[in-house]
Amino acid sequence: MRIVYFSTSEMGPVHQSGHYPDAMTEDDYLYDPAIVQRLDFSKCLVKFNPQISAAYPGPGMRVRPLKASDYDRGFVRLLGQLTDIGEISRDAFFRRFAEMKKCPNTYFVTVIEDTVTSNYASSIIGAATLVIEQKFIHGCAMRGRLEDVVVNDTYRGRQLGKLIVATIIMLAREFSCYKISLDCKDRLIPFYQSLGFALEPGNANSMTMRLPRSSL
Amino acid sequence: MRIVYFSTSEMGPVHQSGHYPDAMTEDDYLYDPAIVQRLDFSKCLVKFNPQISAAYPGPGMRVRPLKASDYDRGFVRLLGQLTDIGEISRDAFFRRFAEMKKCPNTYFVTVIEDTVTSNYASSIIGAATLVIEQKFIHGCAMRGRLEDVVVNDTYRGRQLGKLIVATIIMLAREFSCYKISLDCKDRLIPFYQSLGFALEPGNANSMTMRLPRSSL
Ligand SMILES: CC(C)(COP(=O)(O)OP(=O)(O)OC[C@H]1O[C@@H](n2cnc3c(N)ncnc32)[C@H](O)[C@@H]1OP(=O)(O)O)[C@@H](O)C(=O)NCCC(=O)NCCS
Ligand SMILES: CC(C)(COP(=O)(O)OP(=O)(O)OC[C@H]1O[C@@H](n2cnc3c(N)ncnc32)[C@H](O)[C@@H]1OP(=O)(O)O)[C@@H](O)C(=O)NCCC(=O)NCCS
Repeated sequence: MRIVYFSTSEMGPVHQSGHYPDAMTEDDYLYDPAIVQRLDFSKCLVKFNPQISAAYPGPGMRVRPLKASDYDRGFVRLLGQLTDIGEISRDAFFRRFAEMKKCPNTYFVTVIEDTVTSNYASSIIGAATLVIEQKFIHGCAMRGRLEDVVVNDTYRGRQLGKLIVATIIMLAREFSCYKISLDCKDRLIPFYQSLGFALEPGNANSMTMRLPRSSL
Repeated sequence: MRIVYFSTSEMGPVHQSGHYPDAMTEDDYLYDPAIVQRLDFSKCLVKFNPQISAAYPGPGMRVRPLKASDYDRGFVRLLGQLTDIGEISRDAFFRRFAEMKKCPNTYFVTVIEDTVTSNYASSIIGAATLVIEQKFIHGCAMRGRLEDVVVNDTYRGRQLGKLIVATIIMLAREFSCYKISLDCKDRLIPFYQSLGFALEPGNANSMTMRLPRSSL
């Protein structure tokens, strides 16, 4: 596995380290990858058939934290299958990555990598984010949020959507969140219900206000 | 105003600086109080009658960031009017405050203080939180969330709920959030609609999963 992974990496521009800002290298994970490996999927309520987990996601697949170098593995383009991504330069991506990393235990952007594809520039084929919010209520509790879930369209229907969401749920448990929540469109309710999320009666409203650009 | 404010402070235990952990003093705001003062309420879409704003909230009132010493001004007890607060010791409060502060530009817990009340231990009479989430989508956009809105029951119906929410909206604009959102119970929909929040058709679902304590 390790050999395959490295040989894939060598196909891409990732070793041109001049591309990365100071103190940010190819192996700069957004958070500790050991955390993903130790998630105990035997406690996971999402059912898989065949059985897979974050540590054993199936042949050629790897679940891990986002890396700075995933810019070159198609991470941003993948997000384009979810929503409007706008203009995201390499610099802007690195800056945002670094800003997220400055917030301890907050941003857990997690990806699925196809480690055997010949298509290096599109080897990030799934992604989802856990954002942890620290609160005072409920005895200084933590609340998790599931954000920006996407699986590359040519990889859908293979349990990878379930896998990335289950990984985020297990991460939220690992960090002792008392709940995890998400906002979604009507058509995705059945998908998330099948994973254990519920619309709580009388308390399932997500309200939004679009904001004008500040002139300050 | 300044004199009134200080004389109130002197009634409380706040000058017993031994109560506060190292490097955390009475004046340790969660974020820069000048930001609240400069919010331009002439651009605010919420209408007040009589006119008030974060900088001019009316006689005896002050809108400002949470301070460490607000533990002694009844901040936690106020949250008890919103939900179950559980056990929050002074130490746990300070630790959470410090953890929030370690995340740059993320936690904007904002309070309304009654600077003239004789009831020092309940002088925090309103609160709301802006949490800013950094994203990659929409050109590395920022999304705001309104959390934990509460006004002390003996102060309700005096525009203070509107004021604290409007302050959070203006803060989200100040930090260039492209939208601000919230989750709420059915009965609060009219309140938030009157402030400009909307249930977007087909996209207004908040789904939740309660998590067991991690055994890891
Ligand atoms: C939603 C998405 C992540 C699912 O990925 P996937 O890899 O195809 O999902 P899986 O293969 O794990 O499917 C899991 C189950 O959910 C079902 N499912 C998948 N997409 C669904 C959808 N949009 N609505 C309802 N059910 C769905 C599958 O049929 C499958 O059911 P089964 O276990 O009974 O066979 C993927 O379709 C996607 O990226 N969509 C576009 C982006 C998006 O809408 N993201 C969510 C934003 S909130
Ligand atoms: C909701 C709450 C913050 C409002 O505070 P407030 O200071 O009484 O609000 P205001 O005086 O600014 O009222 C603003 C308007 O909203 C209306 N309003 C207040 N509470 C309302 C409610 N629960 N439902 C509908 N409308 C409400 C007021 O009548 C007023 O309308 P008007 O301008 O037409 O007269 C306060 O009732 C509260 O703390 N409730 C308990 C905690 C809670 O539920 N928080 C929200 C969690 S999501």
